Amino acid sequence: MLREELIRVARGELEAELVLKNARVINVFSGDVHVTDVAIARSLIVGLGEYRGRHEIDLRGRYLAPGFIDAHVHIESSMLSVPEFGRAVVPRGTTTVIADPHEIANVMGLAGVRYILDTSKYNPLSVYVMAPSCVPATDLETAGSSLSAEDIEPLLADKWVIGLGEMMNYPGVLFCDDGVLAKIHAASGRPIDGHAPGLAGKDLCAYVVAGVASDHECTTVEEAREKLRVGMHIMIREGSTARNLHSLLPLVTPENARRCMFVTDDRHPSDLLREGHIDFLLREAVAQGLDPITAIQMATINPAEYFRLYDKGAVAPGRRADLVVLSDLRDIRPEMVFRGGQLVAQDGQVLPGIVTPVQTPLRGSVNVAPLAAEALRVPATGGRMRVIGVSEGQIVTEKLMLAPRVEDDLAVADVERDILKLAVVERHLASGRVGLGFVHGFGLQRGAIAGSVAHDSHNIVVLGTNDADMLAAVQEVVRMGGGLTAVVDGKAIESVPLPIAGLMSSQPLEAVAAQLDRLLAAARDLGATLHDPFMSLSFLALPVIPALKLTDRGLVDVTQFRFVPLFEP
Amino acid sequence: MLREELIRVARGELEAELVLKNARVINVFSGDVHVTDVAIARSLIVGLGEYRGRHEIDLRGRYLAPGFIDAHVHIESSMLSVPEFGRAVVPRGTTTVIADPHEIANVMGLAGVRYILDTSKYNPLSVYVMAPSCVPATDLETAGSSLSAEDIEPLLADKWVIGLGEMMNYPGVLFCDDGVLAKIHAASGRPIDGHAPGLAGKDLCAYVVAGVASDHECTTVEEAREKLRVGMHIMIREGSTARNLHSLLPLVTPENARRCMFVTDDRHPSDLLREGHIDFLLREAVAQGLDPITAIQMATINPAEYFRLYDKGAVAPGRRADLVVLSDLRDIRPEMVFRGGQLVAQDGQVLPGIVTPVQTPLRGSVNVAPLAAEALRVPATGGRMRVIGVSEGQIVTEKLMLAPRVEDDLAVADVERDILKLAVVERHLASGRVGLGFVHGFGLQRGAIAGSVAHDSHNIVVLGTNDADMLAAVQEVVRMGGGLTAVVDGKAIESVPLPIAGLMSSQPLEAVAAQLDRLLAAARDLGATLHDPFMSLSFLALPVIPALKLTDRGLVDVTQFRFVPLFEP
Repeated sequence: MLREELIRVARGELEAELVLKNARVINVFSGDVHVTDVAIARSLIVGLGEYRGRHEIDLRGRYLAPGFIDAHVHIESSMLSVPEFGRAVVPRGTTTVIADPHEIANVMGLAGVRYILDTSKYNPLSVYVMAPSCVPATDLETAGSSLSAEDIEPLLADKWVIGLGEMMNYPGVLFCDDGVLAKIHAASGRPIDGHAPGLAGKDLCAYVVAGVASDHECTTVEEAREKLRVGMHIMIREGSTARNLHSLLPLVTPENARRCMFVTDDRHPSDLLREGHIDFLLREAVAQGLDPITAIQMATINPAEYFRLYDKGAVAPGRRADLVVLSDLRDIRPEMVFRGGQLVAQDGQVLPGIVTPVQTPLRGSVNVAPLAAEALRVPATGGRMRVIGVSEGQIVTEKLMLAPRVEDDLAVADVERDILKLAVVERHLASGRVGLGFVHGFGLQRGAIAGSVAHDSHNIVVLGTNDADMLAAVQEVVRMGGGLTAVVDGKAIESVPLPIAGLMSSQPLEAVAAQLDRLLAAARDLGATLHDPFMSLSFLALPVIPALKLTDRGLVDVTQFRFVPLFEP
Repeated sequence: MLREELIRVARGELEAELVLKNARVINVFSGDVHVTDVAIARSLIVGLGEYRGRHEIDLRGRYLAPGFIDAHVHIESSMLSVPEFGRAVVPRGTTTVIADPHEIANVMGLAGVRYILDTSKYNPLSVYVMAPSCVPATDLETAGSSLSAEDIEPLLADKWVIGLGEMMNYPGVLFCDDGVLAKIHAASGRPIDGHAPGLAGKDLCAYVVAGVASDHECTTVEEAREKLRVGMHIMIREGSTARNLHSLLPLVTPENARRCMFVTDDRHPSDLLREGHIDFLLREAVAQGLDPITAIQMATINPAEYFRLYDKGAVAPGRRADLVVLSDLRDIRPEMVFRGGQLVAQDGQVLPGIVTPVQTPLRGSVNVAPLAAEALRVPATGGRMRVIGVSEGQIVTEKLMLAPRVEDDLAVADVERDILKLAVVERHLASGRVGLGFVHGFGLQRGAIAGSVAHDSHNIVVLGTNDADMLAAVQEVVRMGGGLTAVVDGKAIESVPLPIAGLMSSQPLEAVAAQLDRLLAAARDLGATLHDPFMSLSFLALPVIPALKLTDRGLVDVTQFRFVPLFEP
């Protein structure tokens, strides 16, 4: 019996499998540091004290912390498969993530969620899943699937599915939408994550009383303090785009730190590669003055307790031996990473043989009706049209009213005035639906760019200076079974294939980051002026962020939450 | 639907049932204090902010704290029925207790546990139960019942039974006793409380790796720190006899306070009446320098989180409106107490009509075979006998070797040398078993004292200066169906009836305390010198505390854990 064996190892009657000698343990319970051996057997820590083991590693007084936990992440945003995501973050000290597979669920529904669960096996990373709560995000667009409360219930029976993912549809909560409350009801008694930027006062209380227990969208200390006071766990986010760490750190005090944790939400490959993962947040937080032990508590025991993972988050008997070795608490850089007592990464690299990619069949996700050149034509039916205005670093757009450039009674791109044509091509049901519009702010002078990453329904979004290149770009994305591309003169010059749901690559982190770098350089060659035009592109079809967006079903005035015609009547 | 109604009240669309206006909320999440209204509906807090309600109470800036939680208590030690215990502690601010009905379970088994559960209903106190883990405590005595893992499993299906009670049999854990591990296995995934005075080092690690998660037996900061570091939740106890608050408070720091909580374990009626309950611990802790908000966290959110009572322990939306109104954080004295949004106590008294005692049938627990006078005779078969030596304030006894006083070949009490006869009369199975011995240190000059409270099996324990009074005392206890008595010249001069399992009165706190005062005065009249001779008497039959004890089965040398003859061979 396992329990008996563990007791006997702890008592020293049986030899431990592994002993980490002379560890300077970061003790998240006592909030201090003490030197001891740590005995490990059967993937678990069994004893602190003086132990002997079959294998011994002398840490010579180096720090030993619990493995880090990312409390909220969309793995899809890394564009990496789960095994490759693990390969990217485990050497950084992250041994557990709480993933919300919201993106792949919008494309592939339950099959997408199960794919994430399946590909998480045989990986040095523990991937817990929150059941996506908002698939589809709206009914203003065509998603690949939908998840109702009836779908979420069986999902919650999986031991790795531990709660309900971020309830972005907070208006649905506040207005007591039946389907929304049914999902909350299905998950009651488990953690239910929130997502409610700026929600305050009585509406915030209503959101919390409905059952929502966390928020990762705070941008100011005042907002975070109000959410903390009404009982929300505060997830401090430092993603690639949304970066709230420095604004929110002043919130944290010894009296409230237990309610705070760290999350990355969305991190792109280059940021994972250059900055890191939770280790980056720890370094930044400590550099900004947070006590290192408090910071490590926020990355370990706090999320473990919130998510009720009672065997995680501490260096103590009975906990899983997910451990990180560090030399300097002022500059937290994991040197060795153990998962379940196995050394899985050292000096920034996963050790050979540790990641065993699972061959998990997944159907193709790109299902586009044959697209004729005419499909992209926009008859000019008015003197002024609604143009989406994009600015650097913003996912909020402006609603511009501009005169079209007209050729042969068709409204066309006008490079001079930086007005490019934009199309969203439905890619899930081969419906042939194409939404058409115009966008200002990308600066493209030639060619077209396109991608199958387009929040939240992930149709194919394409913008360009001419229809032929736009068509070629869509065809290249279809040919790759999903991906990003830059096209000029009918030919793809750089591409990043994303065959997994049109969202994720099957290549390693370094390869994906290099491909993306080349793609961005190609887009800049075409004249693109934004820092990351593909990221900006990916938000143009998201009809929950103001002010004007385009979906496969048409142009959406988000402030009015309804479709509007392209041309002023 | 309840959730919809709560959302609408929180948003201000529906009127709240009760609004506490201008409350200075002790916020256990943010660790600070802020003034707000608190809106209540359907027993729950629904909103913080500005609210109107059908009823409103203006707190005019008085403090509002969550109801206090006693994380470990044996209600039986109060000698009060559950409703009367509630009447005693609720005005003190305690709205939830985690009870281990270990004593009544030793007498009545599952029926006793169910009795505690049944009589907890319709009471302003929430009584959660930990399934008793050690019934009987040993096989050196005759208990009224036994609970195996097979008994504990169905008990855990009750929603009010939330874990496994203090695992006192830590040697059983360390030596991997099958029955002990089976109980732990039955409760795995739930809180399992510990009880391991002085356990340290590898044995402590083994105890924790087995699954034990808390300890309330620490007496020094060093012991508590070691237990904290290996992951135990530390319950700081201030009972009637065991008082560890002042020794342990220096342990508590802002970094580790979350792992600490307050418990009373065993509090006698007079201490409940004169000192109080958790409110007393809070006053003492603050007086000793603990930050009042930290202290209140330890009495509210900390036990709520440890016991996974996610709707308790905070003044926040979605939590039960168990609330305490205070004027002074430096002298915590509850002025109003709400339970589920209902005002249940004010100015130290439960309001009329709040406690509705349930008529719950419970069989008599005193089942004694007719006792002939000869049953108490001790033939003098040696020149020296083993005598139990008792000292003030100690439950540990000494093993004395003394010459008997002999009359007619019988060893008898010798008042001159303060050697009294002691008997333990089996009261569960009418077996007729009587354990006989002698005790030094009580000082009785005349008569006898007896009681049916005798840890842990609660047989009838009697000591006296002569057999006739001892017999009369046993008969008086039997006549009362359990209780405590002082007898002289064949007549009971004072008694405290304890008809519930021979452990608990059906009278209110004040009456029980007054009866006990009179009983203690009567015992003093008979010459008793100890502060509380009945409490000392109740531990003479507990064969897990050294050195020499007497059970119905005979004299036990606890250090050798075996029976020994009264006379030296």
